[in-house]
Amino acid sequence: MAKVVSEAVVKRLPRYYRYIKQLEQKGKIKVSSLELASLMNITASQVRQDFCNFGEFGQQGYGYDIKKLKGEIVKILGLNKKYNMIIFGAGNIGSALAGYKGFINEGFNIGGIFEVEPTKDEIHGVKIYPTNYLFEYLKENTVDIAVIATQSKDAEQVAETIVKAGIKNIWNFAPIELDCGKNVIVENIFMSDSLYVLSYKMSHRK
Amino acid sequence: MAKVVSEAVVKRLPRYYRYIKQLEQKGKIKVSSLELASLMNITASQVRQDFCNFGEFGQQGYGYDIKKLKGEIVKILGLNKKYNMIIFGAGNIGSALAGYKGFINEGFNIGGIFEVEPTKDEIHGVKIYPTNYLFEYLKENTVDIAVIATQSKDAEQVAETIVKAGIKNIWNFAPIELDCGKNVIVENIFMSDSLYVLSYKMSHRK
Repeated sequence: MAKVVSEAVVKRLPRYYRYIKQLEQKGKIKVSSLELASLMNITASQVRQDFCNFGEFGQQGYGYDIKKLKGEIVKILGLNKKYNMIIFGAGNIGSALAGYKGFINEGFNIGGIFEVEPTKDEIHGVKIYPTNYLFEYLKENTVDIAVIATQSKDAEQVAETIVKAGIKNIWNFAPIELDCGKNVIVENIFMSDSLYVLSYKMSHRK
Repeated sequence: MAKVVSEAVVKRLPRYYRYIKQLEQKGKIKVSSLELASLMNITASQVRQDFCNFGEFGQQGYGYDIKKLKGEIVKILGLNKKYNMIIFGAGNIGSALAGYKGFINEGFNIGGIFEVEPTKDEIHGVKIYPTNYLFEYLKENTVDIAVIATQSKDAEQVAETIVKAGIKNIWNFAPIELDCGKNVIVENIFMSDSLYVLSYKMSHRK
């Protein structure tokens, strides 16, 4: 795929996926670009353009077959593959992620939690390792994604360790933007940002 | 403030806030729009335009005073006020949020957790109430924000209860978009969306 897909389109893909799953759960078989557009709060032409980035999924005037469309989006998002994740930080967020059973259904397997000085052996059945065991762990385990769920002040050092260990993908929950170089993909989830957008909207309510 | 500020600008505000706090922590006194632009990965002219929505924060060729700029952004985001939050759902996410001490420093006080059938009295010192106690609770407590941290299948019903109870702002963690009418502000945080963007980028790595 030579085409460069814009960040805005990439960000819409999980939303399409969510709506398509909801439609499927409601027993719907087909969906038009107009219906999808209305759910997504964009135009039908935008929907068609978005999908055009990845090939042809439907026929003009006929709509999309929901099951087929879901399968295509699963493939585009890379959710037809399996990923091994490890989590850094056994605090509130790290523990919540370790306990979330939804990940495994989507192909994301949590192999372990790493903490500088573990005080427990496991959380929600996921084993906790001391951080300095990471290199040993990697001799016997493949890790696709490292999740940073540490405090802000520790996140940069943890990111450095992750990069040094050769892990190429980071899902970062610490409220700090990390510079991990060009070869590492970092996807941030800044929970407070979302709360601040809410408080902004509350303060500027019409 | 009559001007309508675009969603894109609103979403950038928490990012500005994060960077400005980081610069302040590093002991910096001033920042130019060019420096901010480079951190934000946008143009300096965009930075100036963004701030222009809210008045004048700096002088041409002089840069922004970091402390003052931070104060302005705090006010714009509504973070100079106090908010009372309650959480629906005492699972992994609900518990993690109850345990996050950062909220209180930013003015968000967690008054309680609501669950259909509580099995515990409290989590991280936050009291757990049965959901059917909500109306009673609201007679003695003001609630500004309701956090939905239930499973997807329960989120719509919980949202209905929240709206019926007259709570006007929802921070939703359930992976489903809720229709709560025009008078209720819903801010969603779809954690899986972020993970799917990561797996997309991993699958389309150059």
